[in-house]
Amino acid sequence: MQPVMTVTEIEAFLETDFPQIHTDGRVMKVLAVSTGEIDMSLDPNERHLRPGGTVSGPAMFTLADVACYVAILAHIGPVALAVTTNLTINFLRKPEPETLICRARILKLGKRLAVVEATLFQRDIEEPVAHAVSTFSIPPR
Amino acid sequence: MQPVMTVTEIEAFLETDFPQIHTDGRVMKVLAVSTGEIDMSLDPNERHLRPGGTVSGPAMFTLADVACYVAILAHIGPVALAVTTNLTINFLRKPEPETLICRARILKLGKRLAVVEATLFQRDIEEPVAHAVSTFSIPPR
Amino acid sequence: MQPVMTVTEIEAFLETDFPQIHTDGRVMKVLAVSTGEIDMSLDPNERHLRPGGTVSGPAMFTLADVACYVAILAHIGPVALAVTTNLTINFLRKPEPETLICRARILKLGKRLAVVEATLFQRDIEEPVAHAVSTFSIPPR
Amino acid sequence: MQPVMTVTEIEAFLETDFPQIHTDGRVMKVLAVSTGEIDMSLDPNERHLRPGGTVSGPAMFTLADVACYVAILAHIGPVALAVTTNLTINFLRKPEPETLICRARILKLGKRLAVVEATLFQRDIEEPVAHAVSTFSIPPR
Repeated sequence: MQPVMTVTEIEAFLETDFPQIHTDGRVMKVLAVSTGEIDMSLDPNERHLRPGGTVSGPAMFTLADVACYVAILAHIGPVALAVTTNLTINFLRKPEPETLICRARILKLGKRLAVVEATLFQRDIEEPVAHAVSTFSIPPR
Repeated sequence: MQPVMTVTEIEAFLETDFPQIHTDGRVMKVLAVSTGEIDMSLDPNERHLRPGGTVSGPAMFTLADVACYVAILAHIGPVALAVTTNLTINFLRKPEPETLICRARILKLGKRLAVVEATLFQRDIEEPVAHAVSTFSIPPR
Repeated sequence: MQPVMTVTEIEAFLETDFPQIHTDGRVMKVLAVSTGEIDMSLDPNERHLRPGGTVSGPAMFTLADVACYVAILAHIGPVALAVTTNLTINFLRKPEPETLICRARILKLGKRLAVVEATLFQRDIEEPVAHAVSTFSIPPR
Repeated sequence: MQPVMTVTEIEAFLETDFPQIHTDGRVMKVLAVSTGEIDMSLDPNERHLRPGGTVSGPAMFTLADVACYVAILAHIGPVALAVTTNLTINFLRKPEPETLICRARILKLGKRLAVVEATLFQRDIEEPVAHAVSTFSIPPR
Protein backbone atom coordinates (compact mmCIF):
# COMPACT_ATOMS: atom_id res chain seq x y z
CA MET A 1 0.00 0.00 0.00
CA GLN A 2 2.05 2.93 -1.30
CA PRO A 3 1.26 6.54 -0.50
CA VAL A 4 0.29 8.73 -3.48
CA MET A 5 0.86 12.14 -1.81
CA THR A 6 3.87 13.75 -0.14
CA VAL A 7 3.82 15.59 3.19
CA THR A 8 3.91 18.90 1.28
CA GLU A 9 1.00 17.92 -0.98
CA ILE A 10 -1.07 16.77 2.00
CA GLU A 11 -0.44 19.98 3.96
CA ALA A 12 -1.34 22.06 0.90
CA PHE A 13 -4.58 20.09 0.47
CA LEU A 14 -5.50 20.53 4.14
CA GLU A 15 -4.77 24.26 3.85
CA THR A 16 -7.30 24.76 1.08
CA ASP A 17 -9.83 21.98 1.65
CA PHE A 18 -9.79 21.35 5.37
CA PRO A 19 -8.87 24.72 6.92
CA GLN A 20 -10.89 24.01 10.03
CA ILE A 21 -8.11 21.82 11.42
CA HIS A 22 -6.26 25.09 12.00
CA THR A 23 -9.24 26.65 13.86
CA ASP A 24 -7.38 26.55 17.16
CA GLY A 25 -4.13 27.80 15.65
CA ARG A 26 -1.42 26.14 13.56
CA VAL A 27 -1.07 23.33 16.03
CA MET A 28 -1.28 20.31 13.74
CA LYS A 29 1.48 19.20 11.40
CA VAL A 30 1.93 16.24 9.11
CA LEU A 31 5.37 14.88 10.01
CA ALA A 32 5.86 11.87 7.74
CA VAL A 33 4.22 9.56 5.22
CA SER A 34 5.32 5.98 4.60
CA THR A 35 3.88 2.66 3.45
CA GLY A 36 0.44 2.34 4.96
CA GLU A 37 0.96 4.98 7.62
CA ILE A 38 1.43 8.64 8.48
CA ASP A 39 2.63 10.62 11.50
CA MET A 40 1.08 13.89 12.69
CA SER A 41 1.73 16.10 15.69
CA LEU A 42 -0.37 18.36 17.87
CA ASP A 43 1.27 21.19 19.82
CA PRO A 44 -1.40 21.83 22.46
CA ASN A 45 -2.24 25.41 23.40
CA GLU A 46 -4.50 26.52 26.23
CA ARG A 47 -7.58 25.51 24.20
CA HIS A 48 -6.41 21.88 24.31
CA LEU A 49 -5.35 21.73 27.94
CA ARG A 50 -7.18 20.83 31.11
CA PRO A 51 -6.53 22.15 34.60
CA GLY A 52 -3.99 19.96 36.29
CA GLY A 53 -1.68 20.12 33.30
CA THR A 54 -2.94 17.60 30.80
CA VAL A 55 -4.36 17.43 27.29
CA SER A 56 -8.14 17.17 26.91
CA GLY A 57 -9.96 14.09 25.64
CA PRO A 58 -11.53 16.04 22.76
CA ALA A 59 -8.10 17.29 21.65
CA MET A 60 -6.83 13.69 21.55
CA PHE A 61 -9.98 12.52 19.74
CA THR A 62 -9.50 15.27 17.16
CA LEU A 63 -5.85 14.40 16.58
CA ALA A 64 -6.71 10.71 16.14
CA ASP A 65 -9.63 11.44 13.80
CA VAL A 66 -7.68 13.87 11.62
CA ALA A 67 -4.63 11.58 11.49
CA CYS A 68 -6.74 8.62 10.36
CA TYR A 69 -8.36 10.79 7.69
CA VAL A 70 -4.92 11.95 6.53
CA ALA A 71 -3.64 8.35 6.38
CA ILE A 72 -6.46 7.48 3.98
CA LEU A 73 -6.04 10.69 1.98
CA ALA A 74 -2.31 10.02 1.60
CA HIS A 75 -3.00 6.60 0.08
CA ILE A 76 -5.96 7.28 -2.21
CA GLY A 77 -5.33 10.92 -3.09
CA PRO A 78 -7.87 13.77 -2.88
CA VAL A 79 -10.32 12.03 -5.25
CA ALA A 80 -13.01 10.96 -2.80
CA LEU A 81 -13.27 12.32 0.69
CA ALA A 82 -13.57 9.77 3.43
CA VAL A 83 -16.04 10.39 6.26
CA THR A 84 -15.72 8.96 9.78
CA THR A 85 -18.49 6.46 10.50
CA ASN A 86 -17.18 5.33 13.85
CA LEU A 87 -14.25 5.73 16.21
CA THR A 88 -13.31 3.91 19.40
CA ILE A 89 -10.72 5.62 21.57
CA ASN A 90 -9.03 4.27 24.69
CA PHE A 91 -7.42 6.79 27.04
CA LEU A 92 -4.46 4.95 28.55
CA ARG A 93 -2.14 7.36 30.39
CA LYS A 94 -2.46 10.99 31.46
CA PRO A 95 -0.52 13.03 28.89
CA GLU A 96 1.86 15.87 29.74
CA PRO A 97 0.90 19.36 28.46
CA GLU A 98 3.35 18.92 25.55
CA THR A 99 3.48 17.90 21.92
CA LEU A 100 1.55 14.74 21.05
CA ILE A 101 2.51 12.52 18.14
CA CYS A 102 -0.06 10.35 16.39
CA ARG A 103 0.90 7.42 14.18
CA ALA A 104 -2.05 6.41 12.00
CA ARG A 105 -1.68 3.02 10.34
CA ILE A 106 -4.12 1.64 7.77
CA LEU A 107 -5.50 -1.78 8.78
CA LYS A 108 -7.68 -2.07 5.68
CA LEU A 109 -8.31 0.14 2.67
CA GLY A 110 -11.27 -1.17 0.73
CA LYS A 111 -13.39 0.32 -2.01
CA ARG A 112 -16.13 1.47 0.36
CA LEU A 113 -14.64 1.27 3.85
CA ALA A 114 -11.29 1.93 5.46
CA VAL A 115 -10.18 0.99 8.97
CA VAL A 116 -7.29 2.87 10.54
CA GLU A 117 -5.47 2.46 13.87
CA ALA A 118 -4.08 5.53 15.64
CA THR A 119 -1.48 5.45 18.42
CA LEU A 120 -1.00 8.71 20.36
CA PHE A 121 2.22 9.12 22.32
CA GLN A 122 4.70 11.62 23.64
CA ARG A 123 8.14 10.33 24.70
CA ASP A 124 7.73 6.64 24.02
CA ILE A 125 5.45 4.91 21.50
CA GLU A 126 5.62 1.83 23.78
CA GLU A 127 3.77 3.82 26.47
CA PRO A 128 0.98 5.43 24.40
CA VAL A 129 -1.29 8.02 26.00
CA ALA A 130 -4.21 6.92 23.85
CA HIS A 131 -5.12 4.40 21.15
CA ALA A 132 -7.96 4.58 18.66
CA VAL A 133 -9.43 2.57 15.79
CA SER A 134 -11.71 4.27 13.30
CA THR A 135 -13.83 3.26 10.34
CA PHE A 136 -14.31 5.62 7.42
CA SER A 137 -16.83 5.42 4.60
CA ILE A 138 -15.33 6.18 1.18
CA PRO A 139 -17.83 7.58 -1.32
CA PRO A 140 -17.77 6.15 -4.85
CA ARG A 141 -14.81 7.62 -6.75
CA MET B 1 -30.87 4.99 40.47
CA GLN B 2 -31.91 8.41 41.73
CA PRO B 3 -30.04 11.61 40.92
CA VAL B 4 -28.44 13.41 43.88
CA MET B 5 -27.97 16.82 42.19
CA THR B 6 -30.33 19.25 40.51
CA VAL B 7 -29.73 20.98 37.16
CA THR B 8 -28.80 24.16 39.05
CA GLU B 9 -26.33 22.36 41.32
CA ILE B 10 -24.72 20.61 38.34
CA GLU B 11 -24.33 23.83 36.38
CA ALA B 12 -22.83 25.57 39.42
CA PHE B 13 -20.36 22.72 39.86
CA LEU B 14 -19.36 22.82 36.19
CA GLU B 15 -18.92 26.60 36.45
CA THR B 16 -16.32 26.32 39.21
CA ASP B 17 -14.76 22.90 38.66
CA PHE B 18 -15.02 22.27 34.95
CA PRO B 19 -14.85 25.77 33.38
CA GLN B 20 -13.16 24.42 30.26
CA ILE B 21 -16.48 23.18 28.89
CA HIS B 22 -17.23 26.87 28.29
CA THR B 23 -13.92 27.44 26.43
CA ASP B 24 -15.74 27.87 23.11
CA GLY B 25 -18.44 30.08 24.61
CA ARG B 26 -21.52 29.35 26.70
CA VAL B 27 -22.70 26.75 24.27
CA MET B 28 -23.43 23.82 26.59
CA LYS B 29 -26.41 23.63 28.93
CA VAL B 30 -27.74 20.98 31.25
CA LEU B 31 -31.44 20.72 30.36
CA ALA B 32 -32.82 18.02 32.64
CA VAL B 33 -31.96 15.34 35.17
CA SER B 34 -34.10 12.26 35.81
CA THR B 35 -33.75 8.67 36.98
CA GLY B 36 -30.57 7.30 35.49
CA GLU B 37 -30.26 9.96 32.80
CA ILE B 38 -29.58 13.59 31.93
CA ASP B 39 -30.12 15.82 28.89
CA MET B 40 -27.66 18.45 27.67
CA SER B 41 -27.61 20.73 24.66
CA LEU B 42 -24.91 22.22 22.46
CA ASP B 43 -25.60 25.41 20.49
CA PRO B 44 -22.88 25.19 17.86
CA ASN B 45 -20.98 28.33 16.86
CA GLU B 46 -18.48 28.67 14.03
CA ARG B 47 -15.87 26.78 16.09
CA HIS B 48 -18.07 23.70 16.00
CA LEU B 49 -19.15 23.84 12.38
CA ARG B 50 -17.68 22.40 9.22
CA PRO B 51 -17.91 23.83 5.71
CA GLY B 52 -21.01 22.49 4.04
CA GLY B 53 -23.13 23.38 7.03
CA THR B 54 -22.71 20.61 9.55
CA VAL B 55 -21.41 20.05 13.07
CA SER B 56 -17.89 18.64 13.45
CA GLY B 57 -17.11 15.16 14.75
CA PRO B 58 -14.99 16.57 17.60
CA ALA B 59 -17.89 18.82 18.70
CA MET B 60 -20.19 15.77 18.83
CA PHE B 61 -17.55 13.71 20.65
CA THR B 62 -17.17 16.51 23.21
CA LEU B 63 -20.91 16.79 23.79
CA ALA B 64 -21.22 13.01 24.25
CA ASP B 65 -18.20 12.83 26.60
CA VAL B 66 -19.32 15.76 28.76
CA ALA B 67 -22.93 14.51 28.89
CA CYS B 68 -21.81 11.05 30.05
CA TYR B 69 -19.61 12.65 32.71
CA VAL B 70 -22.53 14.80 33.86
CA ALA B 71 -24.84 11.78 34.02
CA ILE B 72 -22.42 10.11 36.46
CA LEU B 73 -21.85 13.31 38.42
CA ALA B 74 -25.59 13.80 38.80
CA HIS B 75 -25.98 10.34 40.34
CA ILE B 76 -22.95 10.11 42.64
CA GLY B 77 -22.43 13.78 43.48
CA PRO B 78 -19.15 15.72 43.26
CA VAL B 79 -17.36 13.33 45.64
CA ALA B 80 -15.12 11.49 43.20
CA LEU B 81 -14.46 12.66 39.72
CA ALA B 82 -14.95 10.11 36.98
CA VAL B 83 -12.40 9.93 34.15
CA THR B 84 -13.16 8.64 30.64
CA THR B 85 -11.28 5.40 29.94
CA ASN B 86 -12.88 4.70 26.59
CA LEU B 87 -15.55 5.97 24.23
CA THR B 88 -17.01 4.49 21.06
CA ILE B 89 -18.96 6.90 18.87
CA ASN B 90 -20.98 6.10 15.76
CA PHE B 91 -21.75 8.98 13.39
CA LEU B 92 -25.13 8.12 11.89
CA ARG B 93 -26.59 11.12 10.04
CA LYS B 94 -25.20 14.46 8.95
CA PRO B 95 -26.40 17.02 11.50
CA GLU B 96 -27.83 20.44 10.61
CA PRO B 97 -25.84 23.48 11.87
CA GLU B 98 -28.30 23.84 14.77
CA THR B 99 -28.72 22.92 18.41
CA LEU B 100 -27.86 19.33 19.30
CA ILE B 101 -29.45 17.54 22.24
CA CYS B 102 -27.65 14.70 24.00
CA ARG B 103 -29.47 12.23 26.23
CA ALA B 104 -26.98 10.37 28.42
CA ARG B 105 -28.34 7.27 30.10
CA ILE B 106 -26.45 5.23 32.68
CA LEU B 107 -26.17 1.55 31.70
CA LYS B 108 -24.17 0.62 34.80
CA LEU B 109 -22.91 2.56 37.81
CA GLY B 110 -20.49 0.42 39.76
CA LYS B 111 -18.01 1.23 42.49
CA ARG B 112 -15.06 1.45 40.12
CA LEU B 113 -16.54 1.70 36.62
CA ALA B 114 -19.53 3.33 35.01
CA VAL B 115 -20.88 2.75 31.50
CA VAL B 116 -23.05 5.41 29.92
CA GLU B 117 -24.90 5.55 26.59
CA ALA B 118 -25.30 8.89 24.79
CA THR B 119 -27.80 9.59 22.01
CA LEU B 120 -27.26 12.82 20.05
CA PHE B 121 -30.21 14.18 18.07
CA GLN B 122 -31.81 17.31 16.73
CA ARG B 123 -35.47 17.13 15.67
CA ASP B 124 -36.21 13.48 16.40
CA ILE B 125 -34.57 11.17 18.93
CA GLU B 126 -35.67 8.28 16.67
CA GLU B 127 -33.31 9.60 13.98
CA PRO B 128 -30.16 10.27 16.03
CA VAL B 129 -27.20 12.04 14.41
CA ALA B 130 -24.75 10.10 16.58
CA HIS B 131 -24.65 7.46 19.29
CA ALA B 132 -21.89 6.77 21.78
CA VAL B 133 -21.11 4.43 24.66
CA SER B 134 -18.42 5.38 27.15
CA THR B 135 -16.70 3.78 30.12
CA PHE B 136 -15.51 5.91 33.02
CA SER B 137 -13.19 4.97 35.84
CA ILE B 138 -14.37 6.18 39.26
CA PRO B 139 -11.56 6.76 41.74
CA PRO B 140 -12.06 5.46 45.29
CA ARG B 141 -14.42 7.78 47.18
CA MET C 1 -38.98 1.86 9.45
CA GLN C 2 -41.43 -0.99 9.04
CA PRO C 3 -40.41 -4.64 9.14
CA VAL C 4 -40.94 -6.62 5.93
CA MET C 5 -40.76 -10.13 7.45
CA THR C 6 -42.70 -11.88 10.19
CA VAL C 7 -41.16 -13.93 13.01
CA THR C 8 -42.18 -17.11 11.15
CA GLU C 9 -40.60 -15.94 7.87
CA ILE C 10 -37.38 -14.96 9.67
CA GLU C 11 -37.11 -18.29 11.48
CA ALA C 12 -37.73 -20.17 8.22
CA PHE C 13 -35.01 -18.14 6.50
CA LEU C 14 -32.53 -18.77 9.32
CA GLU C 15 -33.38 -22.49 9.15
CA THR C 16 -32.37 -22.78 5.51
CA ASP C 17 -29.81 -20.02 5.04
CA PHE C 18 -28.14 -19.62 8.40
CA PRO C 19 -28.34 -23.10 9.99
CA GLN C 20 -25.10 -22.56 11.89
CA ILE C 21 -26.91 -20.49 14.51
CA HIS C 22 -28.34 -23.83 15.66
CA THR C 23 -24.87 -25.47 15.86
CA ASP C 24 -25.01 -25.59 19.63
CA GLY C 25 -28.61 -26.81 19.69
CA ARG C 26 -31.94 -25.06 19.19
CA VAL C 27 -31.08 -22.40 21.70
CA MET C 28 -31.89 -19.23 19.76
CA LYS C 29 -35.41 -18.03 19.01
CA VAL C 30 -36.81 -14.94 17.37
CA LEU C 31 -39.45 -13.69 19.81
CA ALA C 32 -40.87 -10.55 18.21
CA VAL C 33 -40.52 -8.05 15.39
CA SER C 34 -41.72 -4.45 15.56
CA THR C 35 -40.91 -1.04 14.10
CA GLY C 36 -37.16 -0.77 13.91
CA GLU C 37 -36.45 -3.59 16.34
CA ILE C 38 -36.54 -7.31 17.08
CA ASP C 39 -36.26 -9.49 20.19
CA MET C 40 -34.38 -12.80 20.33
CA SER C 41 -33.65 -15.21 23.14
CA LEU C 42 -30.81 -17.58 23.96
CA ASP C 43 -31.43 -20.56 26.28
CA PRO C 44 -27.87 -21.33 27.36
CA ASN C 45 -26.73 -24.93 27.59
CA GLU C 46 -23.44 -26.20 28.99
CA ARG C 47 -21.61 -25.00 25.85
CA HIS C 48 -22.55 -21.42 26.71
CA LEU C 49 -21.86 -21.50 30.42
CA ARG C 50 -18.77 -20.77 32.47
CA PRO C 51 -17.78 -22.34 35.79
CA GLY C 52 -19.24 -20.28 38.59
CA GLY C 53 -22.66 -20.31 36.98
CA THR C 54 -22.64 -17.60 34.34
CA VAL C 55 -22.97 -17.19 30.58
CA SER C 56 -19.78 -16.83 28.55
CA GLY C 57 -18.69 -13.66 26.78
CA PRO C 58 -18.61 -15.41 23.40
CA ALA C 59 -22.21 -16.63 23.89
CA MET C 60 -23.31 -13.06 24.60
CA PHE C 61 -21.31 -11.74 21.64
CA THR C 62 -22.96 -14.32 19.39
CA LEU C 63 -26.46 -13.47 20.59
CA ALA C 64 -25.83 -9.74 20.05
CA ASP C 65 -24.31 -10.27 16.59
CA VAL C 66 -27.08 -12.58 15.39
CA ALA C 67 -29.81 -10.33 16.81
CA CYS C 68 -28.40 -7.28 15.03
CA TYR C 69 -28.21 -9.25 11.79
CA VAL C 70 -31.81 -10.38 12.24
CA ALA C 71 -32.97 -6.80 12.92
CA ILE C 72 -31.54 -5.73 9.55
CA LEU C 73 -32.88 -8.83 7.77
CA ALA C 74 -36.36 -8.18 9.16
CA HIS C 75 -36.38 -4.66 7.72
CA ILE C 76 -34.79 -5.15 4.31
CA GLY C 77 -35.80 -8.73 3.57
CA PRO C 78 -33.48 -11.54 2.42
CA VAL C 79 -32.36 -9.63 -0.68
CA ALA C 80 -28.83 -8.69 0.34
CA LEU C 81 -27.05 -10.26 3.22
CA ALA C 82 -25.48 -7.89 5.70
CA VAL C 83 -22.00 -8.65 7.04
CA THR C 84 -20.67 -7.45 10.41
CA THR C 85 -17.84 -4.96 9.95
CA ASN C 86 -17.46 -4.06 13.61
CA LEU C 87 -19.00 -4.65 16.99
CA THR C 88 -18.37 -3.05 20.38
CA ILE C 89 -19.72 -4.94 23.38
CA ASN C 90 -19.78 -3.82 27.01
CA PHE C 91 -20.20 -6.51 29.66
CA LEU C 92 -22.11 -4.83 32.47
CA ARG C 93 -23.38 -7.40 34.99
CA LYS C 94 -22.68 -11.06 35.56
CA PRO C 95 -25.60 -12.97 34.03
CA GLU C 96 -27.37 -15.88 35.68
CA PRO C 97 -27.15 -19.27 33.89
CA GLU C 98 -30.64 -18.69 32.46
CA THR C 99 -32.40 -17.43 29.35
CA LEU C 100 -31.02 -14.20 27.91
CA ILE C 101 -33.17 -11.81 25.90
CA CYS C 102 -31.64 -9.49 23.32
CA ARG C 103 -33.46 -6.45 21.98
CA ALA C 104 -31.81 -5.24 18.77
CA ARG C 105 -32.82 -1.77 17.67
CA ILE C 106 -31.81 -0.19 14.37
CA LEU C 107 -30.05 3.17 14.85
CA LYS C 108 -29.51 3.70 11.13
CA LEU C 109 -30.37 1.69 8.03
CA GLY C 110 -28.59 3.16 5.04
CA LYS C 111 -27.97 1.88 1.55
CA ARG C 112 -24.47 0.64 2.34
CA LEU C 113 -24.21 0.58 6.12
CA ALA C 114 -26.47 -0.22 9.02
CA VAL C 115 -25.85 0.47 12.71
CA VAL C 116 -27.74 -1.55 15.31
CA GLU C 117 -27.83 -1.38 19.12
CA ALA C 118 -28.32 -4.58 21.14
CA THR C 119 -29.37 -4.72 24.80
CA LEU C 120 -28.98 -8.11 26.51
CA PHE C 121 -30.95 -8.67 29.70
CA GLN C 122 -32.61 -11.30 31.84
CA ARG C 123 -35.16 -10.13 34.41
CA ASP C 124 -35.05 -6.40 33.86
CA ILE C 125 -34.15 -4.47 30.72
CA GLU C 126 -33.21 -1.57 33.00
CA GLU C 127 -30.36 -3.70 34.41
CA PRO C 128 -28.85 -5.11 31.22
CA VAL C 129 -26.15 -7.77 31.44
CA ALA C 130 -24.49 -6.48 28.27
CA HIS C 131 -24.87 -3.79 25.62
CA ALA C 132 -23.47 -3.76 22.11
CA VAL C 133 -23.43 -1.56 19.03
CA SER C 134 -22.57 -3.05 15.66
CA THR C 135 -22.01 -1.82 12.14
CA PHE C 136 -22.95 -3.98 9.17
CA SER C 137 -21.98 -3.57 5.55
CA ILE C 138 -24.89 -4.13 3.13
CA PRO C 139 -23.80 -5.33 -0.31
CA PRO C 140 -25.46 -3.70 -3.34
CA ARG C 141 -28.97 -5.11 -3.74
CA MET D 1 6.82 -5.22 31.03
CA GLN D 2 8.27 -8.70 31.48
CA PRO D 3 6.18 -11.86 31.40
CA VAL D 4 6.07 -13.88 34.63
CA MET D 5 4.83 -17.17 33.14
CA THR D 6 6.14 -19.46 30.42
CA VAL D 7 4.05 -20.98 27.60
CA THR D 8 4.03 -24.29 29.48
CA GLU D 9 2.89 -22.67 32.74
CA ILE D 10 0.13 -20.76 30.94
CA GLU D 11 -1.16 -23.85 29.16
CA ALA D 12 -1.13 -25.81 32.43
CA PHE D 13 -3.10 -23.03 34.13
CA LEU D 14 -5.66 -22.90 31.31
CA GLU D 15 -6.00 -26.71 31.50
CA THR D 16 -7.04 -26.64 35.16
CA ASP D 17 -8.63 -23.22 35.60
CA PHE D 18 -10.10 -22.37 32.23
CA PRO D 19 -10.99 -25.74 30.67
CA GLN D 20 -13.91 -24.23 28.77
CA ILE D 21 -11.54 -22.85 26.13
CA HIS D 22 -11.21 -26.47 25.01
CA THR D 23 -15.01 -26.98 24.82
CA ASP D 24 -14.91 -27.17 21.04
CA GLY D 25 -11.86 -29.41 20.98
CA ARG D 26 -8.15 -28.77 21.49
CA VAL D 27 -8.15 -26.01 18.96
CA MET D 28 -6.41 -23.22 20.87
CA LYS D 29 -2.69 -23.15 21.61
CA VAL D 30 -0.41 -20.62 23.23
CA LEU D 31 2.49 -20.26 20.80
CA ALA D 32 4.81 -17.69 22.37
CA VAL D 33 5.23 -15.19 25.18
CA SER D 34 7.48 -12.13 24.97
CA THR D 35 7.75 -8.63 26.42
CA GLY D 36 4.25 -7.23 26.61
CA GLU D 37 2.71 -9.71 24.20
CA ILE D 38 1.67 -13.28 23.49
CA ASP D 39 0.74 -15.29 20.40
CA MET D 40 -2.06 -17.88 20.27
CA SER D 41 -3.51 -19.96 17.47
CA LEU D 42 -6.94 -21.35 16.64
CA ASP D 43 -7.27 -24.38 14.37
CA PRO D 44 -10.88 -24.04 13.29
CA ASN D 45 -13.09 -27.14 13.08
CA GLU D 46 -16.62 -27.33 11.68
CA ARG D 47 -17.98 -25.60 14.81
CA HIS D 48 -15.98 -22.49 13.93
CA LEU D 49 -16.67 -22.39 10.21
CA ARG D 50 -19.40 -20.79 8.17
CA PRO D 51 -20.80 -22.00 4.84
CA GLY D 52 -18.80 -20.48 2.04
CA GLY D 53 -15.54 -21.53 3.65
CA THR D 54 -14.74 -18.95 6.28
CA VAL D 55 -14.29 -18.63 10.03
CA SER D 56 -17.23 -17.31 12.05
CA GLY D 57 -17.29 -13.93 13.80
CA PRO D 58 -17.88 -15.55 17.20
CA ALA D 59 -14.84 -17.82 16.71
CA MET D 60 -12.70 -14.75 15.98
CA PHE D 61 -14.18 -12.85 18.93
CA THR D 62 -13.41 -15.81 21.20
CA LEU D 63 -9.81 -16.07 20.00
CA ALA D 64 -9.27 -12.33 20.51
CA ASP D 65 -10.89 -12.34 23.97
CA VAL D 66 -8.95 -15.39 25.20
CA ALA D 67 -5.66 -14.10 23.76
CA CYS D 68 -6.07 -10.73 25.51
CA TYR D 69 -6.86 -12.52 28.78
CA VAL D 70 -3.77 -14.71 28.34
CA ALA D 71 -1.58 -11.67 27.63
CA ILE D 72 -2.60 -10.19 30.98
CA LEU D 73 -2.28 -13.53 32.79
CA ALA D 74 1.22 -13.99 31.39
CA HIS D 75 2.31 -10.63 32.81
CA ILE D 76 0.66 -10.59 36.24
CA GLY D 77 0.54 -14.31 36.98
CA PRO D 78 -2.53 -16.27 38.16
CA VAL D 79 -2.99 -14.07 41.24
CA ALA D 80 -6.07 -12.12 40.21
CA LEU D 81 -8.25 -13.08 37.33
CA ALA D 82 -9.02 -10.36 34.85
CA VAL D 83 -12.56 -10.04 33.50
CA THR D 84 -13.47 -8.50 30.12
CA THR D 85 -15.41 -5.26 30.57
CA ASN D 86 -15.49 -4.31 26.91
CA LEU D 87 -14.21 -5.38 23.52
CA THR D 88 -14.32 -3.69 20.13
CA ILE D 89 -13.63 -5.92 17.14
CA ASN D 90 -13.22 -4.89 13.52
CA PHE D 91 -13.66 -7.60 10.87
CA LEU D 92 -11.32 -6.61 8.06
CA ARG D 93 -10.90 -9.45 5.55
CA LYS D 94 -12.69 -12.73 5.01
CA PRO D 95 -10.50 -15.43 6.55
CA GLU D 96 -9.70 -18.76 4.91
CA PRO D 97 -10.95 -21.90 6.73
CA GLU D 98 -7.43 -22.41 8.17
CA THR D 99 -5.40 -21.72 11.27
CA LEU D 100 -5.71 -18.22 12.69
CA ILE D 101 -2.93 -16.60 14.69
CA CYS D 102 -3.67 -13.90 17.25
CA ARG D 103 -1.00 -11.56 18.57
CA ALA D 104 -2.21 -9.87 21.77
CA ARG D 105 -0.17 -6.86 22.84
CA ILE D 106 -0.65 -5.03 26.13
CA LEU D 107 -1.29 -1.29 25.63
CA LYS D 108 -1.64 -0.61 29.35
CA LEU D 109 -1.44 -2.75 32.47
CA GLY D 110 -2.67 -0.77 35.44
CA LYS D 111 -3.65 -1.79 38.94
CA ARG D 112 -7.38 -1.90 38.15
CA LEU D 113 -7.64 -1.91 34.36
CA ALA D 114 -5.73 -3.38 31.47
CA VAL D 115 -6.12 -2.56 27.77
CA VAL D 116 -4.94 -5.09 25.20
CA GLU D 117 -4.79 -4.99 21.40
CA ALA D 118 -5.32 -8.20 19.39
CA THR D 119 -4.37 -8.67 15.75
CA LEU D 120 -5.79 -11.78 14.04
CA PHE D 121 -4.10 -12.96 10.85
CA GLN D 122 -3.33 -15.99 8.75
CA ARG D 123 -0.53 -15.67 6.17
CA ASP D 124 0.52 -12.07 6.68
CA ILE D 125 0.24 -9.95 9.83
CA GLU D 126 0.25 -6.89 7.51
CA GLU D 127 -3.11 -8.07 6.11
CA PRO D 128 -4.99 -8.93 9.31
CA VAL D 129 -8.38 -10.64 9.11
CA ALA D 130 -9.56 -8.88 12.26
CA HIS D 131 -8.37 -6.41 14.91
CA ALA D 132 -9.68 -5.93 18.41
CA VAL D 133 -9.04 -3.80 21.48
CA SER D 134 -10.31 -4.93 24.84
CA THR D 135 -10.48 -3.56 28.37
CA PHE D 136 -10.25 -5.90 31.34
CA SER D 137 -11.03 -5.17 34.97
CA ILE D 138 -8.43 -6.58 37.39
CA PRO D 139 -9.82 -7.37 40.84
CA PRO D 140 -7.75 -6.28 43.85
CA ARG D 141 -4.81 -8.67 44.26
